[in-house]
Amino acid sequence: MAAPPETIWTIVVAAGSGQRFGGLKQFSEMGSRRMVDRAVETAARASAGVVVVVPVGQANDPAFEVPNGATTVVAGGSTRSESVRRGLAAVPDGVEVVCVHDAVRPFASVELFELVIAAVSREGVDAAVPGLAVADTVKVVDRAGRVVSTPDRALLRAVQTPQAFRAAALRAAHASSPEATDDAAVVEAGGGYVVVVEGEADNRKITAAEDLAWAQERWNR
Amino acid sequence: MAAPPETIWTIVVAAGSGQRFGGLKQFSEMGSRRMVDRAVETAARASAGVVVVVPVGQANDPAFEVPNGATTVVAGGSTRSESVRRGLAAVPDGVEVVCVHDAVRPFASVELFELVIAAVSREGVDAAVPGLAVADTVKVVDRAGRVVSTPDRALLRAVQTPQAFRAAALRAAHASSPEATDDAAVVEAGGGYVVVVEGEADNRKITAAEDLAWAQERWNR
Repeated sequence: MAAPPETIWTIVVAAGSGQRFGGLKQFSEMGSRRMVDRAVETAARASAGVVVVVPVGQANDPAFEVPNGATTVVAGGSTRSESVRRGLAAVPDGVEVVCVHDAVRPFASVELFELVIAAVSREGVDAAVPGLAVADTVKVVDRAGRVVSTPDRALLRAVQTPQAFRAAALRAAHASSPEATDDAAVVEAGGGYVVVVEGEADNRKITAAEDLAWAQERWNR
Repeated sequence: MAAPPETIWTIVVAAGSGQRFGGLKQFSEMGSRRMVDRAVETAARASAGVVVVVPVGQANDPAFEVPNGATTVVAGGSTRSESVRRGLAAVPDGVEVVCVHDAVRPFASVELFELVIAAVSREGVDAAVPGLAVADTVKVVDRAGRVVSTPDRALLRAVQTPQAFRAAALRAAHASSPEATDDAAVVEAGGGYVVVVEGEADNRKITAAEDLAWAQERWNR
């Protein structure tokens, strides 16, 4: 594979506190490596530079082992969006495409990075995100639990990372310090053109103990 | 537990062709029983009568083993909605609440049936369905894959069965022979009042080989 163009960088977000999981799952060991190491290694194969955003405690710990493939390690903020902004601040001017990827999705492939990067490189597209068809019927409810609508399941996508952005669009979207759990939603909110490409079934977010058990089994395959 | 009121019946839909799974998964054996047997047994504990809708081949097979707890076995139609209608035709007049349940959700509990039945028994409610919070960000796309919206994840519910209906509302909704993969959506489309109650994590739909492996492990717990 050719070296990735200098104009493509990735931010790997590994700054979560793991509230749902009860621990810093992104540093869970799988075989001889941590989850974050696998995510960064894959990102490095698709990007010229990788910014890894870690909790302040890790960023300030001299014993913290920098993931192989990381260009820079920065300390995260108190929210996911703030962590993305701190990562974005470490991405050089002149970079044209920025991918944002969760460290807790260790099984995203290099090909998936390439797919979103190719999609965002099309004229007029501001962001490209991987997504999978949704197996369940999903309903929208109000605060009281009454069903408001049942969107056509064929038009729903459960989205993943890596998400690829035109750097200018991502910087503009974050200029007002918005908060969102999904990066593309920030760009959408500003009227950006976001497309969904086909995601990967194994590219699961590892958030619960059950997920970790699956991930460890998958890792050893 | 007291006997269920005479006014509550359940239709267990076991008529699927298993296209995604490559077989009639509802008749997969788990331990010494079939998936459908467990679903019907649970339904029978919460209902005065259970109509089981099976593929025509099974309905016409003298060797077909009627699930324990089934009141009636009827032949299904060519679509899910048609199968529900054939089941509904076998539910006696005078029944007030009809639950519709998928045979491929063998781990729904009696308590979940009772929960949806209690919810639909409230004044003005036409249907009650179990649902779980959605872990993934879900986006709505158009036919070209462009993102149209990202609904607030806090207001999304991935719905399950058993779904409980006022019998009159379900019969009225099916009068025009609509087609839907979700029964409550048919009632919603007619302006019905549908509520979502808390579902159960183990109440998964068994549609893929991976699900079946999980179900067999869960079954033996």
